[in-house]
Amino acid sequence: MMFLPFLFTLSFLFFSSNALDFCVGDLNAPQGPAGYSCKKTEEVTVNDFIFSGLRAAGNTSNLVKLAVTPASSTQFPGVNGLGISVARIDLDVGGRGLMHTRPDATEVVVVIQGTLCAGFISSTNKVYIKTLEEGDVMAFPQGLMHFVINVGETQALAFSSYSSASPGVYFMDYAWFANDLPTNILHEITFLDPDQIKKLKALLGGTG
Amino acid sequence: MMFLPFLFTLSFLFFSSNALDFCVGDLNAPQGPAGYSCKKTEEVTVNDFIFSGLRAAGNTSNLVKLAVTPASSTQFPGVNGLGISVARIDLDVGGRGLMHTRPDATEVVVVIQGTLCAGFISSTNKVYIKTLEEGDVMAFPQGLMHFVINVGETQALAFSSYSSASPGVYFMDYAWFANDLPTNILHEITFLDPDQIKKLKALLGGTG
Amino acid sequence: MMFLPFLFTLSFLFFSSNALDFCVGDLNAPQGPAGYSCKKTEEVTVNDFIFSGLRAAGNTSNLVKLAVTPASSTQFPGVNGLGISVARIDLDVGGRGLMHTRPDATEVVVVIQGTLCAGFISSTNKVYIKTLEEGDVMAFPQGLMHFVINVGETQALAFSSYSSASPGVYFMDYAWFANDLPTNILHEITFLDPDQIKKLKALLGGTG
Amino acid sequence: MMFLPFLFTLSFLFFSSNALDFCVGDLNAPQGPAGYSCKKTEEVTVNDFIFSGLRAAGNTSNLVKLAVTPASSTQFPGVNGLGISVARIDLDVGGRGLMHTRPDATEVVVVIQGTLCAGFISSTNKVYIKTLEEGDVMAFPQGLMHFVINVGETQALAFSSYSSASPGVYFMDYAWFANDLPTNILHEITFLDPDQIKKLKALLGGTG
Amino acid sequence: MMFLPFLFTLSFLFFSSNALDFCVGDLNAPQGPAGYSCKKTEEVTVNDFIFSGLRAAGNTSNLVKLAVTPASSTQFPGVNGLGISVARIDLDVGGRGLMHTRPDATEVVVVIQGTLCAGFISSTNKVYIKTLEEGDVMAFPQGLMHFVINVGETQALAFSSYSSASPGVYFMDYAWFANDLPTNILHEITFLDPDQIKKLKALLGGTG
Amino acid sequence: MMFLPFLFTLSFLFFSSNALDFCVGDLNAPQGPAGYSCKKTEEVTVNDFIFSGLRAAGNTSNLVKLAVTPASSTQFPGVNGLGISVARIDLDVGGRGLMHTRPDATEVVVVIQGTLCAGFISSTNKVYIKTLEEGDVMAFPQGLMHFVINVGETQALAFSSYSSASPGVYFMDYAWFANDLPTNILHEITFLDPDQIKKLKALLGGTG
Repeated sequence: MMFLPFLFTLSFLFFSSNALDFCVGDLNAPQGPAGYSCKKTEEVTVNDFIFSGLRAAGNTSNLVKLAVTPASSTQFPGVNGLGISVARIDLDVGGRGLMHTRPDATEVVVVIQGTLCAGFISSTNKVYIKTLEEGDVMAFPQGLMHFVINVGETQALAFSSYSSASPGVYFMDYAWFANDLPTNILHEITFLDPDQIKKLKALLGGTG
Repeated sequence: MMFLPFLFTLSFLFFSSNALDFCVGDLNAPQGPAGYSCKKTEEVTVNDFIFSGLRAAGNTSNLVKLAVTPASSTQFPGVNGLGISVARIDLDVGGRGLMHTRPDATEVVVVIQGTLCAGFISSTNKVYIKTLEEGDVMAFPQGLMHFVINVGETQALAFSSYSSASPGVYFMDYAWFANDLPTNILHEITFLDPDQIKKLKALLGGTG
Repeated sequence: MMFLPFLFTLSFLFFSSNALDFCVGDLNAPQGPAGYSCKKTEEVTVNDFIFSGLRAAGNTSNLVKLAVTPASSTQFPGVNGLGISVARIDLDVGGRGLMHTRPDATEVVVVIQGTLCAGFISSTNKVYIKTLEEGDVMAFPQGLMHFVINVGETQALAFSSYSSASPGVYFMDYAWFANDLPTNILHEITFLDPDQIKKLKALLGGTG
Repeated sequence: MMFLPFLFTLSFLFFSSNALDFCVGDLNAPQGPAGYSCKKTEEVTVNDFIFSGLRAAGNTSNLVKLAVTPASSTQFPGVNGLGISVARIDLDVGGRGLMHTRPDATEVVVVIQGTLCAGFISSTNKVYIKTLEEGDVMAFPQGLMHFVINVGETQALAFSSYSSASPGVYFMDYAWFANDLPTNILHEITFLDPDQIKKLKALLGGTG
Repeated sequence: MMFLPFLFTLSFLFFSSNALDFCVGDLNAPQGPAGYSCKKTEEVTVNDFIFSGLRAAGNTSNLVKLAVTPASSTQFPGVNGLGISVARIDLDVGGRGLMHTRPDATEVVVVIQGTLCAGFISSTNKVYIKTLEEGDVMAFPQGLMHFVINVGETQALAFSSYSSASPGVYFMDYAWFANDLPTNILHEITFLDPDQIKKLKALLGGTG
Repeated sequence: MMFLPFLFTLSFLFFSSNALDFCVGDLNAPQGPAGYSCKKTEEVTVNDFIFSGLRAAGNTSNLVKLAVTPASSTQFPGVNGLGISVARIDLDVGGRGLMHTRPDATEVVVVIQGTLCAGFISSTNKVYIKTLEEGDVMAFPQGLMHFVINVGETQALAFSSYSSASPGVYFMDYAWFANDLPTNILHEITFLDPDQIKKLKALLGGTG
């Protein structure tokens, strides 16, 4: 058959190049500064590129009435090494995302349902704050503190995307109070009153 | 007043460092390989970080019953230089996103409403295809051809995010047929029959 | 001997720093988003940085009268992690490189022998096409479809370099037709007639 | 003279290539995501690569008894685009660097004189804290909150380097209290008592 | 006509996105750390992506019997921002490329004609050297000193590619001797005898 | 207790995300182009981020009266993957850092004690040289040859930082003379007299 040589030649090229179109994370292999090691291509399936864990609302029965459900490279290994991931955010009425940063990613939030007051603060201490309606998007630049509050009268739903396959989340309150950093040191480096510090350590599970 | 020296000293630091927390795109200044030039910080407002153009569905009264409304650095200058952007995707019943790539970005799509059949094809010619329900997310790795079809019985809505502040969109059909690339050349490099080529050139506005 | 202390001190610096001048790919160790793991420096030889597999023309006895012989990190492990690689391209009279992209690399082709018609198509559907003579170089920007045709009367030879140590190659025809993507779906997302699709599936080994 | 042709040929190469060894920042030209535009090479002098503004101690006559004097691309334009810069840190006895992050840089501090208690907090809320003596170096990974306190009995001096030519500095206290973010919102997103917030707004110049 | 709405909608998307497939260098606009500013897309032509200046051999009538003709972003603006470029290298019998580095690029050389002795030296002072025949490729990792000598009996021709659109070239001899660096300083920092230094300064046009 | 659900929910988020704030180098695991593999977070301690090996002066009892003591990722694994490291430099009276490059890093030196003559040479052969006093900083751009000489009357001390966690150091003299590169080849590619070459090979331990 006349096409056989052709198929053979190009097939050789396709299957021997070992170039990777993607690097699906192998969660059990060594992890480096650029992400997880890659699964072998022949073990990759379409399910590595799909995550269904964002279908349902997270559990918002907590003090802040918020749930953040991530689809990062750990849950969603198809994005490993590709510099992007997403998360689902559910907020009850009055729910809020406490002041936090993403130390290694810019975030873009899309409001699907509800009304959110959202803001971030720059390193010149300027507050960028606005009320977002359904369909609005807002960017929180990398490393800057930001927050959202459900200021509407209904449950709110948003999806965020991040410029990292594995963005950290860094809550200021937890970083300050949910550990054993001594009260007198924390007082010195934050100006907070010792009583205030002790009150929040008690609330958030810290000691010292 | 005792705090004056303190405030003065730290203020100096804040306002003289010129470090940029962000580089909001100045659409009228030179653009380089890394994006637009930066607006002056004093001219930046919260509105540079918010885009409301995704509130309403795009116009899907077209042959493919699809609308893609981007929030890239041109519409949403706050993401300039930050490696991320988003878009809204509306599909009528039977609507479809034609085979296309994002030459410089990975895409993650979140299905908000409806049922989509989505897929991409790797450079080893393997098809990764699946039906996505509401809340599902799927990744299309950078540079790979992908498509979505509304296979449900309702209007569909999705939001996509991209690992670029200004992702290109590259429709294969349009690149092949919506220009003056001569039919005989296109035939030689695609194996498509000349009649097929001429038919699609007529459909999509090409010549030659 | 007076120089001993000197030699000792600087030698310590040289051999203890563990800084890597290169990261020759260890093809048997884990691969990550940035490339292969590094061979131990003491196992690296000059042959890791040299590849002789491009000396001879590839086998062009195929339908497209083309052979592409890569020197990527798999064949040429010295370029691992260094963002560059090359390939040899042979074309018989009338040979052609089918429409394809390099999803993750820009290509620069140098014509060594013969006359090539080469072109690429931008995402605004503009065709950039020209006839190249011996000694001409042409750039195909990352992710854009391009092609070459030997339009001269002799065998043609070119070398291409890529801005990736392991560039993928992504032939549109093969991605569309050399797999089991159902004809009706492909029809919907490409506008190609089902008959045309079935004809090319038969030619290129696809089903469905 | 026999060497003339040689000198001519290589000189052509040197002076026509326009390759840049560096991109000294032109503070008056457009700034982009990658830094300042480059000064013309013929206007660059050795002084662009040297900064003498760190010779003298900064003014520590302030509440925190600290001075940070930066040598970033604005003061030291030779580092523009090169991903590194430094600063001088002076602390009186009892002086302290308030809790802050570098949103876009990792910091390495070298203690030149004195004894510092230094620490940072990870996003899992773990405190990494230790007393540093003269000659010790400590790394504060990008985006993580850190602090230093002069716990010795003498003036302290340190130099820090940053993995950015223009690292931002982001003081949590100032970002929270030195602006008009309403007290009730700040209360909701930090758990701090309104009285505490109002007290620190008064101290640091905020309103609301 | 039924297709009008369709064409209109997708056209809007194509022409309003402003995403760049490439950033052809505008040699008269500001240059930044990432390269030249971009030409307006409507002013770009196919000729920006083609360079014919490598068709003819460079002038090798010089002491080293070598000519290097670059196709970098200055001559070949289509590669601006894309991380790759090429050069043509001609060597007469006995011609040689003096010891040099590429401070910011890895080089891969392809031998087209002739026999070259090529080598590089690692920072552990190991020499990687070999004779290359026609068709051989060799990599010189970024920043490492390398050289080539035409050891054959014919004119030699090679093409090199670089992992930079604008690679610098840094000849050790010229950097040491072709300027006014005082002989005594150069002696101290290289161990070369003052007489040797003066002899080479005279040869290469230096003073001091 | 009312706060339990809250603590549980956010704790889940913190500990399941697997996002890395840092990637402390595991010196025994595979190393890739981006650095060492990461230690498990639970094995990381504050000591990974601190290095005390720079407290004492290095041994300068050698011919060049210089000691460079590195704190790179091998000694100081906390900086792995973070693009920065430091070193201590001690120079006796008359001590000097021989002509060298950092092939993969820009260096910024801070003079702590003494008076240094420091310089670098660009690829256009221009010498940028100046005398540095205590507190001065100077940048040596990536890949360019530079040197320091203690021209004062006291011991000198400096700290350098690098835009790499694992910067190589590349001494020109050692690379040329401390190996078996044949004298005749070295003569051809450097113009140095064979006698000079043999003399320095003898000094620095080379052969050939």
